[in-house]
Amino acid sequence: MGETILEKTEGRVSYHDSVEEMLIRIREDGLSNVFDRYALQEKIRCKFCLEGLSCKLCSQGPCRISEKGGQTRGVCGIGPDAMAMREFLLHNIMGAGTYGHHAYQAFRTLKATANGETPFKITDVEKLRWMCKMLDIDTNLDTNKMAIKLSDLLLEELHTDYDRPNRMVEVFAPRKRKEVWKSLDIYPAGVIYEVQDCVASCLTNVDGDYVSLATKALRLGLSTIYNAQIGLEMVQDILFGTPKPHEVEVDLGIMDPDYINIVFNGHQPWLGVATMQKAKSQEVQQRAREAGAKGLRIVGSIETGQELLQRFDMDDVFVGLIGNWLAIEPLLATGTVDVFAMEENCSPPHIDTYAEKYQCTLVSVNDIVRIPGLKYGFDYNPKEVDTVSDSLINLAIENFRKRHGKIQPKVPNVKQKAIAGFSTEAVLNALGNNLDALVKVIGEGKLKGIVALANCTTLRNGPHDWNTVNLTKELIRRNILVVSGGCGNHGLEVAGLCNLDAIKLAGDGLAEVCSMLKIPPVLSFGTCTDTGRISMLVTALADHMDLDIPELPIAVTAPEWMEQKATIDGVFAIAYGTYTHLSPVPFITGAPALVKLLTEDVEAMTGGKVGLGDNPKEAADGIETHIMKKRKALGLK
Amino acid sequence: MGETILEKTEGRVSYHDSVEEMLIRIREDGLSNVFDRYALQEKIRCKFCLEGLSCKLCSQGPCRISEKGGQTRGVCGIGPDAMAMREFLLHNIMGAGTYGHHAYQAFRTLKATANGETPFKITDVEKLRWMCKMLDIDTNLDTNKMAIKLSDLLLEELHTDYDRPNRMVEVFAPRKRKEVWKSLDIYPAGVIYEVQDCVASCLTNVDGDYVSLATKALRLGLSTIYNAQIGLEMVQDILFGTPKPHEVEVDLGIMDPDYINIVFNGHQPWLGVATMQKAKSQEVQQRAREAGAKGLRIVGSIETGQELLQRFDMDDVFVGLIGNWLAIEPLLATGTVDVFAMEENCSPPHIDTYAEKYQCTLVSVNDIVRIPGLKYGFDYNPKEVDTVSDSLINLAIENFRKRHGKIQPKVPNVKQKAIAGFSTEAVLNALGNNLDALVKVIGEGKLKGIVALANCTTLRNGPHDWNTVNLTKELIRRNILVVSGGCGNHGLEVAGLCNLDAIKLAGDGLAEVCSMLKIPPVLSFGTCTDTGRISMLVTALADHMDLDIPELPIAVTAPEWMEQKATIDGVFAIAYGTYTHLSPVPFITGAPALVKLLTEDVEAMTGGKVGLGDNPKEAADGIETHIMKKRKALGLK
Repeated sequence: MGETILEKTEGRVSYHDSVEEMLIRIREDGLSNVFDRYALQEKIRCKFCLEGLSCKLCSQGPCRISEKGGQTRGVCGIGPDAMAMREFLLHNIMGAGTYGHHAYQAFRTLKATANGETPFKITDVEKLRWMCKMLDIDTNLDTNKMAIKLSDLLLEELHTDYDRPNRMVEVFAPRKRKEVWKSLDIYPAGVIYEVQDCVASCLTNVDGDYVSLATKALRLGLSTIYNAQIGLEMVQDILFGTPKPHEVEVDLGIMDPDYINIVFNGHQPWLGVATMQKAKSQEVQQRAREAGAKGLRIVGSIETGQELLQRFDMDDVFVGLIGNWLAIEPLLATGTVDVFAMEENCSPPHIDTYAEKYQCTLVSVNDIVRIPGLKYGFDYNPKEVDTVSDSLINLAIENFRKRHGKIQPKVPNVKQKAIAGFSTEAVLNALGNNLDALVKVIGEGKLKGIVALANCTTLRNGPHDWNTVNLTKELIRRNILVVSGGCGNHGLEVAGLCNLDAIKLAGDGLAEVCSMLKIPPVLSFGTCTDTGRISMLVTALADHMDLDIPELPIAVTAPEWMEQKATIDGVFAIAYGTYTHLSPVPFITGAPALVKLLTEDVEAMTGGKVGLGDNPKEAADGIETHIMKKRKALGLK
Repeated sequence: MGETILEKTEGRVSYHDSVEEMLIRIREDGLSNVFDRYALQEKIRCKFCLEGLSCKLCSQGPCRISEKGGQTRGVCGIGPDAMAMREFLLHNIMGAGTYGHHAYQAFRTLKATANGETPFKITDVEKLRWMCKMLDIDTNLDTNKMAIKLSDLLLEELHTDYDRPNRMVEVFAPRKRKEVWKSLDIYPAGVIYEVQDCVASCLTNVDGDYVSLATKALRLGLSTIYNAQIGLEMVQDILFGTPKPHEVEVDLGIMDPDYINIVFNGHQPWLGVATMQKAKSQEVQQRAREAGAKGLRIVGSIETGQELLQRFDMDDVFVGLIGNWLAIEPLLATGTVDVFAMEENCSPPHIDTYAEKYQCTLVSVNDIVRIPGLKYGFDYNPKEVDTVSDSLINLAIENFRKRHGKIQPKVPNVKQKAIAGFSTEAVLNALGNNLDALVKVIGEGKLKGIVALANCTTLRNGPHDWNTVNLTKELIRRNILVVSGGCGNHGLEVAGLCNLDAIKLAGDGLAEVCSMLKIPPVLSFGTCTDTGRISMLVTALADHMDLDIPELPIAVTAPEWMEQKATIDGVFAIAYGTYTHLSPVPFITGAPALVKLLTEDVEAMTGGKVGLGDNPKEAADGIETHIMKKRKALGLK
């Protein structure tokens, strides 16, 4: 698809031709699908909900705010700004709690691994040693003992309370930020206690002040990144290796119906890695061939796929990433999936009809994921990874026998190359381990600035990935490097923006830098969980330049946020001190004081603020203006 | 007010004359109030929200389910039953998290007290020793060391995870229930991990199965009671004494404008107790008199008031309880409150206008409570209790100087006597420490059964406390003993049902038992947090009779639940194995399979189920029928 996409949306639901192609089959087969459900819901949206002016938390509700009718407050007395902010905080809590859950599972898995109870081993001993050194754990211990001490410490840091210092923040936050957070009373406790404090604040008749609620969200955002995300991503690196840039394949064209295909979907890579390891054995491949298949393959879907993609080379067994969550129904409709294994969002609740129609076995490998009609629902326990991965392989072989030759496959002939696997270490490596090289190209203006893009994909502000792709194109054209994570990142990979060919879409300065360093203008930094990882790069830059975060020529964008982990990532960015573009507009427009707080007044507190707008060109204007202002303040052109 | 109240609702908003009387002043003074806001909201209720058929969690929403328009699912694909149950689980999470917060503060306060860092001392050493014995803590240690060990253990039990046994459940759950819970996979981890698991399950595209979501709610309910509530109430007993029945005064008539009045409102009694202790000093009373007051008084409001009421005798300083949360605006309008100190719900968000109009100083003593325009917002830290209670006294004296002689007081001339302070120990004591006496009167049919009433008060199903009072009258008339906790309990106290005069409203058998034991037909068991305490009595009875909970002739009712702690108490009751009447009807009526699960099918799982209905006579019929069925199964008439 060409650069004229901005003018080519008529009748489309997705930026991607593969998804459009599959939708024809889905509609012909009469299946309910997310795209058509969206169109139906557009007819009956609630204006009060859209503006944040509704509440259904207690039995005296549901309430609505309507100036016209004299309903200026809810029954309890809550006003529009607190009503909207409380709901927004509740969503943020859901995101924070989910990251906390993922972190808990990561730390528990590291510990079980060190105790020899999982099929994993510690892959990146250097990173383990580095983390231990950062956190004052004796690095002379043997590897497994270090890992146990680290996992114990990280588990403890999840529930650091208000009576103990928060070591993760002390160690990993930008040097100059910590005092700011203390002065604003947003220096956090561990994510578990921040979640609990926020939950109790959101109860009916507890916190009715939008400023207080917003402040709590900022604190929650910081604890989410420092006490959950950064630890969990480092632990995943320790277990499975730190990401390194390498070429991969993406889009639905990677599917081959003649193989037994196990797809891993969600965010937590435990079962994906274990099953991949097992699938590389001759024994499993032999069993696959005996079942009439060419072999057994592992396929990545959404964030779990990206966790695999960024750490493992593609080969005969691991064949790449299908795309992001709006591509799940289209994927299942290809009639090529034998097991769809889920452990976190996004596992859409109505895919049972696809599983039935196209003969796919749905399996949940974490108790949080359940779907109507699900036959195979495992809990996650590190000690059971090995046996559950055996079950997945058995179920896939069994499914293949029922599917192959019976279900007509339909695979779009579209594949794309991408370079995945950037990380702070990889960027430093590309720079010859010297951030001065980055400072230099920023100083010269070849690179105007850096934008972190982290979010989902949604139909709210245009077709699937349309806003993400178009905003990114605008940014790189303006010599702004994009560092991307999350479902949006998969959208960019599938759209071809994460490979060296995309350099031709960049402005002259950025193109020169990319060509010199042999990097694409969009650096695939992983998943939404890698928001913490992205911040580590920015923190390194700020500390290196002896600047505070709000002084840097950087910004954050979530051009297609959909769920609640994206909103807490966005809130973190505001506390972290960055201009943060959000699209679609959150449900706050009926709350004028709240809108002013988030888009204007908060800047005087944290240095960050929210930028709104659903038009990619205008969003790029806002980001560029902000970056140029920061450049000017630094004495740069 | 007489027994004909059922026919006397026209034009009234409250069962209580005092509240009706104050509302006249509030309206004359042109203040926004909860009763009139309720009437206004009645005009613009959202039918979709009322039926549980709306969702605004993600950016692809807000969605609605409308069969007529073809919107049979949300954009993500979620169906009506999961949509309604997910929202209900979210509410339950809020309740569980808030109880978890309260428990954390209790355990933290016990530890600080044992370390000599608070103005409190350990009052009930026997109970401390009993808890330590139950939990295998060495009872030969000195008191403070035992207390530290106990608080450490209870804090740890809050975040017992899936890899450790749950000691609180092991020790305090009914003997025969534990295997049932294990077989249903609802034997819980600590409340912190259950909250986290449920939060992650509620995220968009994670758990789309209403049965799974409901099962998670049950597990969450069990962890809430065992890992938060029971520990926290026992710790409050250890710190401030185990409740004992004694006569107290309630209703707005306890207010005297010529005193400096500090009112404690919420659920957590720390500041209330500390300030009461201080207020009993000659020095403070002298300062009050120097300011022109007759003295300084401590007044209890809602649950915090009940926590004080059930443990402390009334005297010159502590003068009783004003009522429950719908009486807060009327209380402030009396023009007699100098400091209104809040630490949890219900602290309605629009009382700033009352504080201004009637010259009252609003103070929050916990960071979770914030209100627009609040000038004094403290965080809670056990080590700062002493200095914050000094501040409260200073602020109250200062306020009195501005209020007295300037604000015209208006105090309804209505006071009521109640016997507060029942507990398992107190009931056993009344029975001569022999549960056989209770078994005997149940066997004889003098006592048909026992109903635990625990909830709030709401305007949804009639005037303030109307349903609670009328259902209770129906129950005691039918020889069913009522054990009550929460705002509903305060309503019953104010309505005169918790004193010996109320025996005349009881049926003959119950009247005989009450007269013999010198107890009212409604036993005031404290707050909503005392749901755990009530369950301990029932557990003792079940274990004593060697029966499982569903075999007992008991039931639970929440006849005016309002907020999210009430819903998790209700859900606990279902898991615990009791018939659980809920009014108003939760927002689930658009979800037929969910309604069937909760009102019918769950009985085959836990032995408990939900009974619905907003008519007190019909609700009593349902409860009585259930109790008679259980009696019959036991071979009783």
